[in-house]
This record gives sequence, C-alpha cells and structure tokens, in this order.
Amino acid sequence: MEQLQRLPGVGPKTAQRLALHILKRPETEIQALAQALIDAKQQVGLCSVCFHLSAEPVCEICRNTNRDDHTICVVSDSRDVIALEKTREYHGKYHVLGGVISPMDGIGPEQLTIQSLVRRVSQQKPKEIILAISPSVEGETTTLYLGQLLKPFTRVTRIAFGLPVGGDLEYADEVTLARALEGRRELD
Amino acid sequence: MEQLQRLPGVGPKTAQRLALHILKRPETEIQALAQALIDAKQQVGLCSVCFHLSAEPVCEICRNTNRDDHTICVVSDSRDVIALEKTREYHGKYHVLGGVISPMDGIGPEQLTIQSLVRRVSQQKPKEIILAISPSVEGETTTLYLGQLLKPFTRVTRIAFGLPVGGDLEYADEVTLARALEGRRELD
Repeated sequence: MEQLQRLPGVGPKTAQRLALHILKRPETEIQALAQALIDAKQQVGLCSVCFHLSAEPVCEICRNTNRDDHTICVVSDSRDVIALEKTREYHGKYHVLGGVISPMDGIGPEQLTIQSLVRRVSQQKPKEIILAISPSVEGETTTLYLGQLLKPFTRVTRIAFGLPVGGDLEYADEVTLARALEGRRELD
Repeated sequence: MEQLQRLPGVGPKTAQRLALHILKRPETEIQALAQALIDAKQQVGLCSVCFHLSAEPVCEICRNTNRDDHTICVVSDSRDVIALEKTREYHGKYHVLGGVISPMDGIGPEQLTIQSLVRRVSQQKPKEIILAISPSVEGETTTLYLGQLLKPFTRVTRIAFGLPVGGDLEYADEVTLARALEGRRELD
C-alpha cells in the first residue's frame, strides 16, 4: 500500500483497494503485472530526434516517411503528442520539450530539449514550426521564448485560443472570451 | 412547491427547501420578493434596437454614445451580452438574435431578430459584424447563414475557437484541438 500510494491519483483508500485486489488474484497474474512495469521502464526511452517516448532509438512518428517533414509541432510533453495524434488532423513531425520554462521550479531553457530543437531546425530547415504549448503563465513564457529563438530560421505559428468546441459562450471565462474576440477571423 | 419546481434547476428537494425558508421569513420580506418578480416581468422588455433585455425602450448599451457604432457583435442570447461585457474588451454594439436557427425545434430565421438585424446593417452600415455564437450544430448553421446574408453589406468575422485559456492541451477534446491547430496564427 505504501508503494502504491506513491502513484499519481492513488490515495490511501485506492491503495488499499488495489492491494486487496492484488492479494485476491493468482500469482502468475501479479508476476505478469510486475514484469510489465519493469519491462516498460527498461525498454521505453526517448526518441533521439523528437524526444517522444519510444521503445526504439528513433520513434515511430519520426521514422514514418509518409509524414510531412516540413512541419514540426513543438509540445511540452509526450502526453500532448498522444492528444494531438488522436485528432488525426496533424501529419507533420513533433518535438517534445520535456516541460516548460519555469524559473520558480529551476527549469530554464537548458533543462529542456530546446538546444536539440534549434539544431534540428537549423539542419532540417522545416517550413513551419507550430508551437502547441498549454496557455499557462509558464507555457506563454516558453512560447514567446521559442518564438524569438526560432523566427530567424523559419515561419513560427501558435495554436489558436478561444471557445472550446461545444462550449457555451455563457460559461466561458472572461479571459477565454477576450481571446476568442481578439482572435476573430474573417468568415469565408 | 409546485410553482417553485417550474423554475430551472429547481427539483423537488430544492423546492421544499425554498418553500420552508419562505414560511420562516417575515411576511414583508416575502411580499418584497413577490413584488420584485412582478416588477421585473412588467418593466423589463427588449431593446427596440438590439433586443437585449432593457427596462427602457432603448437599452443602456445602445444609448451609450461612447461605444463604437461601427461594430455590431451578434449573439444568440442576452446572457451572452452579459458574458461579453464582463470581459471589458468589447466596446461596440450588440444584436441579440433571441435563439439560433433550429429546424428540429421549428425555429427558422423568421422566428429570430434576423430581419431587424439586416435592416439595421443596411441603414447603419457598420464596418464590422462579429458573429459570437456558441459552436453547437445549430450555432454553426446560424453563423454560416448570417455570414451569407451579411457579407454583401460589410466585413463579417467570427470569434476564435481553440484551447480555452488555462486549459491543458492534454485535456482538450479532439475537435477543439483540431480547431486550435487549424486556427493557428503567425507569432508576432
């Protein structure tokens, strides 16, 4: 229970429920679970190109020759790659920063994969870099920093902020509404 | 309790709680509440220009000469005017449709204030019409319909869709993420 409680989202009650469940299951099943945890930890590393999680030295997305090499979408975390892949709308490559710039937590540009990104951009010369970083204070800082850094090389865009689809105007917070208004576009 | 239950969001339990509360309060207080309800219903009507709720024939926003006459923001409901006013970012005028086009509910353009809007636009000749309608299926239909209708007169824009501010990329639904990607803008 003590070990289980260290997992995110697992409190004392859930830990107890999980522990009792494990005691009830056959030993082979639990060995398979334990082995899977060790295997995952041992086999999954980071792609040497984009730093997305990968069991191979270069990840599946970077190896896929059907994907557009001229667009790099920069995200803070591997989870964001998974979220964007689910949209099935993006066919370029990615670059995972491994976090956002956060001086309060001692995370500066050198703690992230920014140097590799700059090297990659100057070598590959992509046509567009899309910054897809969550709009927190740290996220904004990171976006602006990367914008300044990468604009000499190529076209840099950022994803849109505004009303979520299916969201109601009435329930949107003021900042989101203001951004939606500011980011308005000509109807085509 | 029967009457109270007709209010939105009031179920049997809340109705009982409200009813018991009312029985406990002094009569003068309850009379004031009852009078306020009647007064509101009798005095508040719709602005004859923009159809926003108003105690006067023409609402405060339409009468305010400090506001930009050249921009009309079209919303479906008076609640949306209140939400947009809270942002303090919009200084133009409004037009409240009184709903969205919804053939399933028998609401066509003629049930809304669209005719008045077209008349208003052709007379006032605003420089921009901003469509700020929630992105439901009916909302999209209404936006596209109004776009076609108003484009001959002036510039027609719509508010941006994308990631809500403070929202996390990871938790955004796929459609919102796809729209955020599609609506990306050059970093300035």
